[in-house]
Amino acid sequence: MKRAYNFNAGPSSLPLSVLKRAQEELLNFQNTGMSVMELSHRSKEYDAVHNRAQTLLRKLMNVPETHDILFLQGGASLQFSMVPMNLLHEGEVGNYVLTDSWSDKALKEAKKVGKTHVAASSKEDRYKYIPKIDDIRLSDHAAYLHITSNNTIAGTQWHEFPNVVTNLIADMSSDILSREIDVEKFALIYAGAQKNLGPSGVTVVIIRKDLLEKSSDSLPTMLNYKTYSESRSLYNTPPTFAIYMLSLVLEWVEEQGGVKAIEKRNREKAALLYNCIDESDGFYRAHAEKGSRSFMNVTFTLPNEELTKKFLTEAKERGLIGLAGHRSVGGCRASIYNAVDYEACEVLVDFMQKFKKNVS
Amino acid sequence: MKRAYNFNAGPSSLPLSVLKRAQEELLNFQNTGMSVMELSHRSKEYDAVHNRAQTLLRKLMNVPETHDILFLQGGASLQFSMVPMNLLHEGEVGNYVLTDSWSDKALKEAKKVGKTHVAASSKEDRYKYIPKIDDIRLSDHAAYLHITSNNTIAGTQWHEFPNVVTNLIADMSSDILSREIDVEKFALIYAGAQKNLGPSGVTVVIIRKDLLEKSSDSLPTMLNYKTYSESRSLYNTPPTFAIYMLSLVLEWVEEQGGVKAIEKRNREKAALLYNCIDESDGFYRAHAEKGSRSFMNVTFTLPNEELTKKFLTEAKERGLIGLAGHRSVGGCRASIYNAVDYEACEVLVDFMQKFKKNVS
Repeated sequence: MKRAYNFNAGPSSLPLSVLKRAQEELLNFQNTGMSVMELSHRSKEYDAVHNRAQTLLRKLMNVPETHDILFLQGGASLQFSMVPMNLLHEGEVGNYVLTDSWSDKALKEAKKVGKTHVAASSKEDRYKYIPKIDDIRLSDHAAYLHITSNNTIAGTQWHEFPNVVTNLIADMSSDILSREIDVEKFALIYAGAQKNLGPSGVTVVIIRKDLLEKSSDSLPTMLNYKTYSESRSLYNTPPTFAIYMLSLVLEWVEEQGGVKAIEKRNREKAALLYNCIDESDGFYRAHAEKGSRSFMNVTFTLPNEELTKKFLTEAKERGLIGLAGHRSVGGCRASIYNAVDYEACEVLVDFMQKFKKNVS
Repeated sequence: MKRAYNFNAGPSSLPLSVLKRAQEELLNFQNTGMSVMELSHRSKEYDAVHNRAQTLLRKLMNVPETHDILFLQGGASLQFSMVPMNLLHEGEVGNYVLTDSWSDKALKEAKKVGKTHVAASSKEDRYKYIPKIDDIRLSDHAAYLHITSNNTIAGTQWHEFPNVVTNLIADMSSDILSREIDVEKFALIYAGAQKNLGPSGVTVVIIRKDLLEKSSDSLPTMLNYKTYSESRSLYNTPPTFAIYMLSLVLEWVEEQGGVKAIEKRNREKAALLYNCIDESDGFYRAHAEKGSRSFMNVTFTLPNEELTKKFLTEAKERGLIGLAGHRSVGGCRASIYNAVDYEACEVLVDFMQKFKKNVS
């Protein structure tokens, strides 16, 4: 089997060793005579998996004891609603920075729940940059400031985070665990797993424990953060296989040397691609402005539609998968999450250089 | 490897052939050079999986064109809230039949949303039976009547369904696809996958299309059935691996001869166990009354706590897993979902007979 060079935006590449391990033990998990999928979520065997995923994530991200780690379902899209349902109350205002259509969606859902305010936005400039921290204008009575730490569609990323008086909330779906961050700065972090953490089907929420008091008991039980905190995310049947895969991916991150080592490699991968783009005499153009470039999603355009199409077709023939830009913006995008290795980026750069040469 | 006899209440046994197939193609799905978990949910390869799961479920359950099939997350527990959020409006009453602590939970969540009414209940009799259809008393302005078609904790099951004027809604988490049912009779059916459909992490909803008009646009997008209907359950990233496993389980059901053949075998399995219980001169006692017995979850007690404990310990040594009753009621429970084969039930009966003999 020839493994594809997988640049999908999510679900995306998983470490080969993780997949092999899952394959090996798929029929018989730790001599139970059952697949991990067949274990009761109340069994001690599954509990160890669940616990390991929480413990390892705490260790790798250096999550302080002030914060709880929860496993939910529904992806970031459900968090767009759960955040205001739990944390935005009468007389308060949810503050949002718009940096992509995902943050736009988060705002749209919050509007259904309570009062909102756009604290900063690069929408007018096609989301080509992250607004300057000094340009963020909070409303009065801000319940929180919501940001999207990495923007998969625009290909931008926050490289420093605002020091705000209010609660800072981040959708980190597309860059969690890709770089060292100071979790203490955040009131709440959420992330769908399907980019850096595992397969789709599990959502990680890291919440400062004092915020749990803000959730009203009148909320639907499954939409109340307290439910997950009080039950160790075992109130009802969790997505056990997805959490098992998460635990394996976390073990892999640890084997790689932890988040510090992962970050170093991610920066090298991104530099390789951006250099190729910047040195192409304008044949490839990065969508994101220099100070805001993402090292997870490298978005770029070619001179015209026809060349873009040809590029994508030939890339696919070369085994380079998932390079089309998001359907809402077009162009190209290379998503180079943690599990995409340096070699894949080298192959892509080699292809980009040859493609340019061939059509010039 | 010796395969366990898995009587877990859910997550539970999966067909061995399904697990083997998943194992085989885990690293390379249909020559894509990727795991099915690594495919984009917008790729044609994943789309075929998604479509196959929907089409096969429609075929196997004989779902009429008047009904839509949706894939959600959050389990039945989230449906406890979504049902009233979407379908219970001002001036209407949600009607519930209480047959287990699960239906009790469904009622509890509905109370947070609107007016409710208990149309029938066997709570006073420790849920030992399903109330008689003639004893169901609907309220005025009933939005729907909610039932739990099979009750995992009490071990009871509806063997005929009420013909009601209002919308009939059923939580079928623990007996969907176990027997032929007339879907047309139901306004809405929901089921967490982890008993008869696949691993945990995906929830199936079958909804009569005219009901979609009842969902208000002010609902959170992810909690509105319309969102799933309009996007073929691809509004955001679905739990792709869980849906893939669902598609394999559905293929397996088809290979077995469809739901009719599965039902026949399920009835034989249940008969084997209930006969053993009934012929034990009161050593084993079924919790559920005869007319209400479930052929998915066989609940029974032994003469005392000490014997129960001994029974469970020795069963486990014999490779019989998951036989403890639900933590809320104690006793024993054998969950014999579709993937538990006849042979496993024979082994259990043999064990039960010998155990009784040894301690008598």
